Amino acid sequence: MAFSDLAGFEALLKAAPGPDLEAKAEAEARNAQLTKPAGSLGRLEEIGIWYASWRGAARPKVTRPQVAIFAGNHGVTARGVSAFPAEVTVQMVANFEHGGAAINQLARNAGAVMSIHPIELDRPTADFTEAPAMSEAECVAALKVGWDAVDPQADLLVVGEMGIGNTTSAAAIANALFGGTAADWVGRGTGVDDAGLKIKEEVCAAGVALHGDKTPLEILAALGGREVAAMAGGIARARHLRIPVVLDGFICCAAAATLERAVPGALDHCLAGHVSAEVAHPAVLRALVKEPLLSMRMRLGEGSGAGLAIPLIRAAVECLSGMATFAEAGVSGK
Amino acid sequence: MAFSDLAGFEALLKAAPGPDLEAKAEAEARNAQLTKPAGSLGRLEEIGIWYASWRGAARPKVTRPQVAIFAGNHGVTARGVSAFPAEVTVQMVANFEHGGAAINQLARNAGAVMSIHPIELDRPTADFTEAPAMSEAECVAALKVGWDAVDPQADLLVVGEMGIGNTTSAAAIANALFGGTAADWVGRGTGVDDAGLKIKEEVCAAGVALHGDKTPLEILAALGGREVAAMAGGIARARHLRIPVVLDGFICCAAAATLERAVPGALDHCLAGHVSAEVAHPAVLRALVKEPLLSMRMRLGEGSGAGLAIPLIRAAVECLSGMATFAEAGVSGK
Repeated sequence: MAFSDLAGFEALLKAAPGPDLEAKAEAEARNAQLTKPAGSLGRLEEIGIWYASWRGAARPKVTRPQVAIFAGNHGVTARGVSAFPAEVTVQMVANFEHGGAAINQLARNAGAVMSIHPIELDRPTADFTEAPAMSEAECVAALKVGWDAVDPQADLLVVGEMGIGNTTSAAAIANALFGGTAADWVGRGTGVDDAGLKIKEEVCAAGVALHGDKTPLEILAALGGREVAAMAGGIARARHLRIPVVLDGFICCAAAATLERAVPGALDHCLAGHVSAEVAHPAVLRALVKEPLLSMRMRLGEGSGAGLAIPLIRAAVECLSGMATFAEAGVSGK
Repeated sequence: MAFSDLAGFEALLKAAPGPDLEAKAEAEARNAQLTKPAGSLGRLEEIGIWYASWRGAARPKVTRPQVAIFAGNHGVTARGVSAFPAEVTVQMVANFEHGGAAINQLARNAGAVMSIHPIELDRPTADFTEAPAMSEAECVAALKVGWDAVDPQADLLVVGEMGIGNTTSAAAIANALFGGTAADWVGRGTGVDDAGLKIKEEVCAAGVALHGDKTPLEILAALGGREVAAMAGGIARARHLRIPVVLDGFICCAAAATLERAVPGALDHCLAGHVSAEVAHPAVLRALVKEPLLSMRMRLGEGSGAGLAIPLIRAAVECLSGMATFAEAGVSGK
C-alpha cells in the first residue's frame, strides 16, 4: 500500500480493516468462564476483549510493544509560544538516543522497543499564521515517516512526539476541528507564563482564521508539524496492520483527531492511555469518546502517558489469555 | 522483633521507623534537574520521591516486588452473606497455587514474586454476630502469619486476600472504625442480590452493635478474619523493613485502617493502588487520605488492583533514578 497525496491517504483510511467479530465473540465467551465473579476485573475485561478483536485471536499475547517517537520543529516558535528555545528539540532527540529521557525509562519499564524519528529538524515548518505549516507534499512525506516507522511485527503501538512549540500546533488543530475559541484549546504546555499564554492564544486564533475552513487532513498540513503528521501516519498504518494503539496526550490526540474527523471510526483500534494536565486534553478525549486509563497529572509528551499505560493493557490481555476457567480449576460457581 | 499480644503489636506499630528525610531531600533535588519541564511527570514525580524516602536512597530501584496472598474462612458465611459458597476459598487457593487466578497473571506481568498463605481454612472464624470472630490469641497468630510472610529482601509489597464472606467483615470493621450505619459500608461484594445485601447489612449492624466500642486492634480481632489480620501484620512488618506497600481494595484498606486508627501515621509507607467498584471503598480511601492510582472498576480482591499498579510505581522510580539531568544531557533550560 502506498499513497502520494492526501486524497490517497484518506482513501487508505477508508479502506482500513475493522475488528474481528468472531475473535471478539470467542474472547467474550472465554472471559465469562474465567475464575472470577462476572465483571469483577472491570475495565481490564473490556480491554482484553477489545485487544482480542483487533488481533483476531481469542487468547492473544502482547510480546512486542513499540514506542515510536517523532520529532519536528515549528515555525511558530519564532513568535514566542514556548517556555523553551527551539534548539531543545534536537537536544532532546540526542537525549532519547542516549537513553536519558523519561520515555526511555518508561519504554524499558514496559518492555517496549523504542524507535526515534527526527524529521528535518533543520527545516522548521512555516509559521502557520502566515502560510500553511506544510505543503501537501511535505505533509505526505511526514505521514510516510510515521507510516514506515511502524514495525509490522509489533503488537501494540505508542506514538510519541518531541517538538518545541507543538502544543500551539495541537491547540490550533483542535480549535479548527472542534470549534470554540483559541482560549478553549490553548494551555501552558511546557510551562509558559501569562504573557506567553496570551501569545499562544493570538497565534492559535490567527492560524485558525487563516486555515480553519479546510478539510481535516488539510488542517493537519496547515496547522500541524512534521512530528504531528507522522503520528497520524503511524496510527493509520497500525490500523492496516491490526496493531492496537495507545494514544498519548494532547498533541497525539490532536493528530489522531484529524483521522477521526476525516473518516469516522478511524480510531476504533485506539485506546486513550491517559488524560494529561494540559488544559484542553479532556475536551479532545470527550470529542473522541475515549475514556483515559490513567490520570497522573502528567504533561510531558514523548509518549510518556501512553508508555506508562502499556503494562495495564498487557495485564488485561494476560488475564484474558492466562486465567483458568471455573471448569479447569474446579472452582464452584454462584 | 516479636509480639505475643495485641498490646505488643501496637507497641511495634508505635516504634516503627519514619521516612529518611535526607534521602527525600536528595531525591527532590535530583528530580528538579531531570530533563523535563518542572512537574511535568505529575504524580510520578511524587511517587518516586516518596519511594526514595522510604528506601533511604535518592536513586532507588524496584527489583523485587512481592505479592503475598492470605486466605481465611469466615463464620458469617453461614448467614448467607456471599453469592459464592464457602468452599470457594480453598478452591481458589488451589487455583492460586496452579497459576490460574487473575493475581497470578498480574503478578507475573508486574515481575513480582507471589506467595500464598492459607490460614486454617478448615477452622472458620466465629460468627461475629454471636462472639468475637477471633480470640486475641487467634488474631495474634494471624497477624504473625502476615508478619512472617514478608520477604525482607522485597522492595515493594502487595498484600492480597481470598476469603468468601470477607467484604462483610471489612464493612463491619469500617463501620466500627468510621461510624455511620451498616448501609453506608455494605456493598455487593462478589455479586449478592438485593436479599443478600439486606442480610449483609443486618449481619454488619449486629456485629458492630456487639463489638463497635472496642479499640481498633480489638475490632480487627472481633470483626476481621484471619486473612484480614494477616494483611495488617504484613503491612506493619513492611514498615519495619522500610518496604513501601501498595494497598489493594476494600478489604485490604479495612485491614490497613485498623493500623492507622491504632497509631496515626502507621500507613505513611503505603500508597493506594486503586479504587475499586465496591461501593464503600472510596469512603475508606478518603478516611485514610489516600488518592488511588487506578480506577478500573475492578472488584475482585486477591491484591489484583494493587498488583496492577506495581508497574506504575516502578515506572516512577525508574524515571527518578534513570533519567539524565539537563547538565548531563546538554539540554537547554527555560
